[in-house]
Amino acid sequence: MASGSEVMSNKQVILKHFANGAPKESDMVVKTSSISLKVEPGSNAVVIKNLYLSCDPMMGNRMKNLGIPGLTYTVESPLEGFGVAKVVASGHPEFKKGDLVWGAVGWEEYSLIKNTQSLFKIHHTDVPLSYYTGILGMPGITAWAGFYELAAPKKGENVYISAASGAVGQLVGQFAKLMGCYVVGSAGSKEKVEILKNKFGFDDAFNYKEEQDLDAALKRCFPEGIDIYFENVGGKMLDAVLLNMRLHGRITACGMISQYNLSQPEGVHNMMNIVFKRIQMKGFFATDYFPEYAKFLDVVLPLIREGKVVYLEDIAEGLETAPAALVGLFTGHNVGKQVVAVSKE
Amino acid sequence: MASGSEVMSNKQVILKHFANGAPKESDMVVKTSSISLKVEPGSNAVVIKNLYLSCDPMMGNRMKNLGIPGLTYTVESPLEGFGVAKVVASGHPEFKKGDLVWGAVGWEEYSLIKNTQSLFKIHHTDVPLSYYTGILGMPGITAWAGFYELAAPKKGENVYISAASGAVGQLVGQFAKLMGCYVVGSAGSKEKVEILKNKFGFDDAFNYKEEQDLDAALKRCFPEGIDIYFENVGGKMLDAVLLNMRLHGRITACGMISQYNLSQPEGVHNMMNIVFKRIQMKGFFATDYFPEYAKFLDVVLPLIREGKVVYLEDIAEGLETAPAALVGLFTGHNVGKQVVAVSKE
Repeated sequence: MASGSEVMSNKQVILKHFANGAPKESDMVVKTSSISLKVEPGSNAVVIKNLYLSCDPMMGNRMKNLGIPGLTYTVESPLEGFGVAKVVASGHPEFKKGDLVWGAVGWEEYSLIKNTQSLFKIHHTDVPLSYYTGILGMPGITAWAGFYELAAPKKGENVYISAASGAVGQLVGQFAKLMGCYVVGSAGSKEKVEILKNKFGFDDAFNYKEEQDLDAALKRCFPEGIDIYFENVGGKMLDAVLLNMRLHGRITACGMISQYNLSQPEGVHNMMNIVFKRIQMKGFFATDYFPEYAKFLDVVLPLIREGKVVYLEDIAEGLETAPAALVGLFTGHNVGKQVVAVSKE
Repeated sequence: MASGSEVMSNKQVILKHFANGAPKESDMVVKTSSISLKVEPGSNAVVIKNLYLSCDPMMGNRMKNLGIPGLTYTVESPLEGFGVAKVVASGHPEFKKGDLVWGAVGWEEYSLIKNTQSLFKIHHTDVPLSYYTGILGMPGITAWAGFYELAAPKKGENVYISAASGAVGQLVGQFAKLMGCYVVGSAGSKEKVEILKNKFGFDDAFNYKEEQDLDAALKRCFPEGIDIYFENVGGKMLDAVLLNMRLHGRITACGMISQYNLSQPEGVHNMMNIVFKRIQMKGFFATDYFPEYAKFLDVVLPLIREGKVVYLEDIAEGLETAPAALVGLFTGHNVGKQVVAVSKE
């Protein structure tokens, strides 16, 4: 639907209404709108063509009206998330047409980005571009900051990771192995457990859906307790972990995906362990660590190039598949980092 | 019961059996034993005469068989806690007869202390000696480290303290006011609420027993939310606080007294706020900060001498009253720091 050379048709994933409980495909609609590929004179905005979109659990919360400042999406507007894109027009001195970027984008074919502070130029293209939605993007910084900065790991410590085959968990486990830690992960299928042990090199792994008693499963894997818990799921799992933490243990609270869609989140009963064992629990967003992106790249790019870390992606093809891909995160449908490929160039 | 000049009768508060639920007076028994007031040749132990004993909520947990390393008392032995004492015999070069000390002692008239690492010499006696069980002892370091070190407060921040008239809370509130924070406390009686506002200078205070809805009470006191929560109670209060924390808020987990004696601790449902608001929650014991005691004294002694902080004690007379005084902590019987005066000299 191009009108002249400046206005293009623009498929978008729109939030129809706030989600209630688990996000459903029917909370979203794919609509075609139009967008000008020119930037207004004097503006320092950029127009980008989206190549890959990242499906992240937090997006499910942003679809709800939770009343948390800066979190909630606008109804009848496109969803927002992280993506990889190519600049098609720029009024900003630091970006020019043809530049590859990653950062906060709209769930649409083209996005007009007024706030370029959340866009990073991509300088290294010897790795798959989609990696900038994952290992080299927000989930990568999440794993890196959450493990190295928040959990202050030491060689030989016992590290437990829930949702361990996901976008962040798989990396945390590999970082922890590289540091000489004992690493156990949990996931929700036999296939994922095999991947943890055989592809990512975890020392052990279990399928939480097959465990009658999470406390017993953790005691089996960690007879001497857990020093670092990388928390991705919350609820019952957190409660069992608190019983198995060691003195001065650290919990990096990255996410609580098991709780996001419950009308009443599960109660966590073992909080006293935080006092008795002098545990530190810290929530964080990767965005708090974006200023350290260059430092992060210096660490992680060589690890990829030397084959010291691997990264597993689950790529859905086409913007039309994006709502299903996002919803699938909450049922554990994805194996590895869930990406949506919007366009090949 | 002195036998010659070396063996003295020694009244002791003995743990009869592990406590089940709330500690009861009947879990303890006061018995008279005997003790040698001489130190074995070659030993570097000291014998002390206890003057004041400190009643601390954590002692209730130590009376139970919780299976936490280093925490649990030995059945048929005296309870242990913090106290103020006078050295009556010493094999240790750093302590001599007549020295005043505070630190980890037995609940008895005289204690043989083999591990003197937890004894501190008292050099300043222009303040009440009993203060070394409170503002100048473990609760003081707790308040100081928990507020200044763990919560990293900034001028103008909103600080909420539960169990605010207790041994630790009253000090945290006064430290926070000195720093220029907005300070609200909660306590369990009208009398305690008045003390918070009129004696300790809190900006506001409420009686949690009279509030139907803790979330509403906190929203009334903190329309813009809480930056720092000094956690002394746990359970429902923690759950309500999580709803009212601001982004990047800090929770110092000092204690959870409301939960210690429940057969099933209350569930905390709002843990997702730790992720969404990037909250830090940290448990700690004052003992972790004992190496900084000298630094602490340099700050707090002048504040006492200049009248910039006040300290409220609730002193029970005689070792026989110790079990009741300890049990009273869990029903909110004490007003201020609960101390037991064992001997006047």
